[in-house]
Amino acid sequence: MAAAAVEPTGFGHANGNVKSTAYGANMVNGILEAEKTPTAPGKASKEEIELVLHTFRLMVSDLCQQFNMGHPGSAMGMAALGVALWKYTMKYAPHTPNWFNRDRFVLSNGHACLFQYLNLYFSGYKAMTWEQLLSYHSERPDSLCPGHPEIEHEGVELTTGPLGQGIANAVGLAIASKHLAATYNRPGYEVVNNHTWCIVGDACLQEGVGCEAFSYAGHLQLSNLTVLYDNNQISCDGSVDLTNTEDVNTKMRACGWEVVDVMDGVNDVDGIVSAIEKGRDPNRVKPLFVNIRSVIGVGSAVAGKAVSHGAPLGENDIATMKKAYGFDVDKKFVVPEQVRDFYADIPARGEKYVQEWNDLISKYNKEFPELGEEFKGRVEGRLPSDWTKLIPSSFPTELTPTRKSNNYVMKDIMEQVQSFMVGTADLTPSVNLTYKDYEVFNPPTLKPTSGKVGSYAGRYIHYGIREHVMAAIANGLAAFNPQTIIPITSSFFMFYLYAAPAVRMGALQKLQVIHVATHDSIGAGEDGPTHQPVELAALYRAMPNMHYIRPADSEEVAGAWEAAVGYKHGPTIISVSRHALPQTGVTKRSEVSKGAYVVIEEEKADVTLISVGAELHFAVKLAKDLAEAQPPLKARVVSFPSYALFRDQPQQYQRSVLRRHEGIPAVAIEPYVSLGWERWADAGLHMRSYGHSLPGKYIYNYFGFSMENMNLKIQGFVKDFQNGVVGRGEFVELLEKPAGHN
Amino acid sequence: MAAAAVEPTGFGHANGNVKSTAYGANMVNGILEAEKTPTAPGKASKEEIELVLHTFRLMVSDLCQQFNMGHPGSAMGMAALGVALWKYTMKYAPHTPNWFNRDRFVLSNGHACLFQYLNLYFSGYKAMTWEQLLSYHSERPDSLCPGHPEIEHEGVELTTGPLGQGIANAVGLAIASKHLAATYNRPGYEVVNNHTWCIVGDACLQEGVGCEAFSYAGHLQLSNLTVLYDNNQISCDGSVDLTNTEDVNTKMRACGWEVVDVMDGVNDVDGIVSAIEKGRDPNRVKPLFVNIRSVIGVGSAVAGKAVSHGAPLGENDIATMKKAYGFDVDKKFVVPEQVRDFYADIPARGEKYVQEWNDLISKYNKEFPELGEEFKGRVEGRLPSDWTKLIPSSFPTELTPTRKSNNYVMKDIMEQVQSFMVGTADLTPSVNLTYKDYEVFNPPTLKPTSGKVGSYAGRYIHYGIREHVMAAIANGLAAFNPQTIIPITSSFFMFYLYAAPAVRMGALQKLQVIHVATHDSIGAGEDGPTHQPVELAALYRAMPNMHYIRPADSEEVAGAWEAAVGYKHGPTIISVSRHALPQTGVTKRSEVSKGAYVVIEEEKADVTLISVGAELHFAVKLAKDLAEAQPPLKARVVSFPSYALFRDQPQQYQRSVLRRHEGIPAVAIEPYVSLGWERWADAGLHMRSYGHSLPGKYIYNYFGFSMENMNLKIQGFVKDFQNGVVGRGEFVELLEKPAGHN
Repeated sequence: MAAAAVEPTGFGHANGNVKSTAYGANMVNGILEAEKTPTAPGKASKEEIELVLHTFRLMVSDLCQQFNMGHPGSAMGMAALGVALWKYTMKYAPHTPNWFNRDRFVLSNGHACLFQYLNLYFSGYKAMTWEQLLSYHSERPDSLCPGHPEIEHEGVELTTGPLGQGIANAVGLAIASKHLAATYNRPGYEVVNNHTWCIVGDACLQEGVGCEAFSYAGHLQLSNLTVLYDNNQISCDGSVDLTNTEDVNTKMRACGWEVVDVMDGVNDVDGIVSAIEKGRDPNRVKPLFVNIRSVIGVGSAVAGKAVSHGAPLGENDIATMKKAYGFDVDKKFVVPEQVRDFYADIPARGEKYVQEWNDLISKYNKEFPELGEEFKGRVEGRLPSDWTKLIPSSFPTELTPTRKSNNYVMKDIMEQVQSFMVGTADLTPSVNLTYKDYEVFNPPTLKPTSGKVGSYAGRYIHYGIREHVMAAIANGLAAFNPQTIIPITSSFFMFYLYAAPAVRMGALQKLQVIHVATHDSIGAGEDGPTHQPVELAALYRAMPNMHYIRPADSEEVAGAWEAAVGYKHGPTIISVSRHALPQTGVTKRSEVSKGAYVVIEEEKADVTLISVGAELHFAVKLAKDLAEAQPPLKARVVSFPSYALFRDQPQQYQRSVLRRHEGIPAVAIEPYVSLGWERWADAGLHMRSYGHSLPGKYIYNYFGFSMENMNLKIQGFVKDFQNGVVGRGEFVELLEKPAGHN
Repeated sequence: MAAAAVEPTGFGHANGNVKSTAYGANMVNGILEAEKTPTAPGKASKEEIELVLHTFRLMVSDLCQQFNMGHPGSAMGMAALGVALWKYTMKYAPHTPNWFNRDRFVLSNGHACLFQYLNLYFSGYKAMTWEQLLSYHSERPDSLCPGHPEIEHEGVELTTGPLGQGIANAVGLAIASKHLAATYNRPGYEVVNNHTWCIVGDACLQEGVGCEAFSYAGHLQLSNLTVLYDNNQISCDGSVDLTNTEDVNTKMRACGWEVVDVMDGVNDVDGIVSAIEKGRDPNRVKPLFVNIRSVIGVGSAVAGKAVSHGAPLGENDIATMKKAYGFDVDKKFVVPEQVRDFYADIPARGEKYVQEWNDLISKYNKEFPELGEEFKGRVEGRLPSDWTKLIPSSFPTELTPTRKSNNYVMKDIMEQVQSFMVGTADLTPSVNLTYKDYEVFNPPTLKPTSGKVGSYAGRYIHYGIREHVMAAIANGLAAFNPQTIIPITSSFFMFYLYAAPAVRMGALQKLQVIHVATHDSIGAGEDGPTHQPVELAALYRAMPNMHYIRPADSEEVAGAWEAAVGYKHGPTIISVSRHALPQTGVTKRSEVSKGAYVVIEEEKADVTLISVGAELHFAVKLAKDLAEAQPPLKARVVSFPSYALFRDQPQQYQRSVLRRHEGIPAVAIEPYVSLGWERWADAGLHMRSYGHSLPGKYIYNYFGFSMENMNLKIQGFVKDFQNGVVGRGEFVELLEKPAGHN
């Protein structure tokens, strides 16, 4: 049966009768499983395909049963999708898994990971040995079959699992490919023309980040992206229509996608192949959404039921399946020789693709030697070795918001180094990340009402008001190939809470993504507590692999960028001010990568003042003021741009910076809540509540960050400390909430 | 011009020509501003409406100009929407602002707050004095006109600002109303029949949380919800079609909404009124989406331009506007008497609504005395005084996952106390929050393929796979009226990162919402690092007004719920385990609300072991093991379920629990990262990285949390501490990342 382009009657609202009766007559989602034999594309016989599908489902069942845990249902339901993709459609090379121009595959419904592991195994990825395949949910910490696909492992493009992330990542992969193609392809030389394939489940359509991704991909006309919707109409709570009765196809069309239906995704391999092959049509102008009706847990007694989602089927059920499929009920993990034969040609086919591409690249290098050299650099993820020379050696000495300093530091680099793709979630006027003659990444056919006509060669991305998908797309851009693209995102720091799940996934995957977060601290002012981040830094300081950096002035902004661009194994957040700050004159860009360093030393100090970012200049001023207090206090000052970078320094260096072991107390100053500062300081001037809507020049005073008040509080604390009123390990909050403040 | 029900040609893709020429001929979004006089509903004259609109726009302009900051554009563009809503459509009572059955209004595009403040002022809210109105962006910390609307202030239902939250909150308000109506209305007695009105801008349609809200509200058939889309096609970066070219109307219809167009939202007040009044049609079965074309900054020189969004217009521009409108260019803040007269009837009209409702309630109480009493209790937000008696006094002593303990504690309360509305983001089988004969909140006409047919009286909410909107809707449920509904949400703890922006908004607004977060700690097991929260607690421990509680066993789960239900001024996260835990026998429910307490005392202790939640039993066991070490160590044990609750205890109590001031070192044990523990402990056994996909019984050992290893590390540390190897204020991480782990 070929793919039907017609709309199935009534679909989307009250999805027909779902019944599961007995083996051999599962009628779910309108699909009668065992009454049909599969359709077979090309040379394969129906019997051959049937055997492959049965083997696949039984392998999934056995693998979940082995250690009595796992997610069998969706993987079983998608068996035919696997055949269509790995055997018939995708261009990839199992023996050269990182071939640059390979098609990318993303399993957005990552819990169905066995689907991917089995396809990697069958198609001949060397790392996925039989022993590895059988390690799913074993005690082996080196298993290549974790509970969700992980980027570290051969054949896996990105770690997925939190629902909706994968589709957004796939959009990033497709953007990367479109962009590189537009930049480097020449007539007759398609050096980049890979396709991105993504499977999504019902959940990815519901999650907000998925909705953002679909909307934005349609806008971008990403014709090199095909989504296969594993439409089994089941989620953990039961049938999807308990919670979602959208007309999915119409919605997708309204978002700018072409939609094709496959009515029997369980048996109709030929139909799936026909449908998804449309994705590769060179005349496409839209991304393709293939709505494939499938049956979760198909073949089992719980076919079409939620219970098959996240628990093994049980020995009895599996035995009955094996019997129905003509397999030996007493054997586990059986892969018939015919099934191995079916997949046997794939590695050689892959190497042929690689060879063809290598030949093309050789010709390309001859025809376009300069461009070829540049392309080679991108493939190898190289930056110009002297990129830091593009950063000015000094900056205007006037008051400067650090968000503006970003532009001083990066404008030439963003302009000249092609690796950077810079984007914003609709805050171009606020984040200051445009550069000379910047070109927008947009379909060249799009004529916006106002603003520039873009092209796919553009490197400035207007993500819309979609922070979450911005960060998830950036992960996809970074994952395309190491350092071929270094994505920069931007928004207000507070809205990196919207983006946080994707930022975390970038950190977990050690992807180099640079997030520019402006309007940090209460200094953001009159927008009020909804926009003032007081607790968000705690998350990013706690997040493994993340470097959260708050530079204090233009000089430290330069250091922050040097650290961020140099950090290849995770994301960085560069956290900057909306408001103008003095150039302290005491900062050093080269020290930022140490996380903290002494900016004013004082041999016989009474106190160390630690401050950071937009408030470092408070500490510098306070040190002077305290020297004139009665009695005078000698204060040394530490600039502390990054918790993570300092935490990872040797203890000897940490001690030399803080000198607490010498008995000098440390006071931290930052208008965030104190959490985390207890590690480095004995007391702190911090927020005890949310912020307040007050213009910048009033808000610091309102919360007690006036010079006079800070001075008094520090004097009081040092006295208490010297008199032993403060006990060991008792962190003292020196500020209170303003009276009457919530 | 009446509302057009037809689809405007080409809308959604390349939105016509947007031009801004000069005063008197602004042609933007297809609307010729000054060539039209406004339409006027009912008795008002066109001239009267025109004067109101002009006054409104000039007040906005003057208010932003006054302190040279603010957001004028959208508020100006929406002037006609304000007239339609406050003068002609909404049922509310400015002099009884908290009237229970009032219509609710939510400004989802909260930066346009001046729109709301001016309407509150004109319609006669007493708190919004002239002086207060003029305090927008002044130095006054007690201003009722902050940069975004805030819930504390009269006439504001919810704090909005982060885009997309407001529409989700409005869905919550509409659910609350539907639910109360279904529960308490009787034929002839519509004691609850209020409507919810929400204005959204282009951003709310793009944000994922907004997409989730629209999808779910359509599914729920919330016919008591009307969304006014201020369609000005402008965002910060320029025209919306730079980033979004969806066919919005088709998308909304696909999501189950009725859509009506208003082609001239600047002048056509009558058309807006006609369109939105459809929202109140008692025969409705869908929520209503009114797509209103408007012009940002209309009347000014920057009409239709992004620059009018977030910056004052400038004195010159305002002077020219005043001239064009026939106002005195030398006067600011002019409200003609005719404008005041126009709104003068509103307070009395409102009091009449209140009186009618009070009369209805009197009759209702006579007709249905028992129901009337129950309804009164709900209106007053009362729980049965003896609700804690519904919690069992003891629990099964067997191994129990604390997610299961939740059900032991709450099943009778959830069943019997009508105030609780319990929901889940598609994890019913995992979170264990169903109760006897629970009824699903769903349209009664919906016949799901599987699962129960619901009703609007149902109190169990299937939110779908939409964590973010779940939390935002819960805020709306809680904000309907204090404690009339106490919403409970549930998901895996890790996915409360998806929900975090909404959870934060609940904390900021001090709304009582209880979030049940299961699968906390690495003990969640084989799902792997994407699902194992190692850093998320840092966010919630840092979040003001939030109580993050990790109970250790069933007894502490009881205490956690007592604390959560008793905490009326903010949200609580009850964080529980997937895996089975021993009943420690040393915990006390009454102590949980103190945040931490001693469970094993030891007068002459060598070390204090602090632990929490799923790992407290490690500490209890370690204390025994250490007593048998060579040399033996005397360990006392502190259970520490909540950072925030303990932080807020008096210092004397804190010292009595920790005894660090006596020189006893404290070691914290929790398989999260250490951030925050430095405040309470000298050393810790914590995660140094993301987790790993390993079944529960292996993962603790893999990361060093085996009894043997913890024992050795603690012995080593105590020795170092006693020998002074560890310096003052130096927090010691006792565990390393496993070799080879990322």
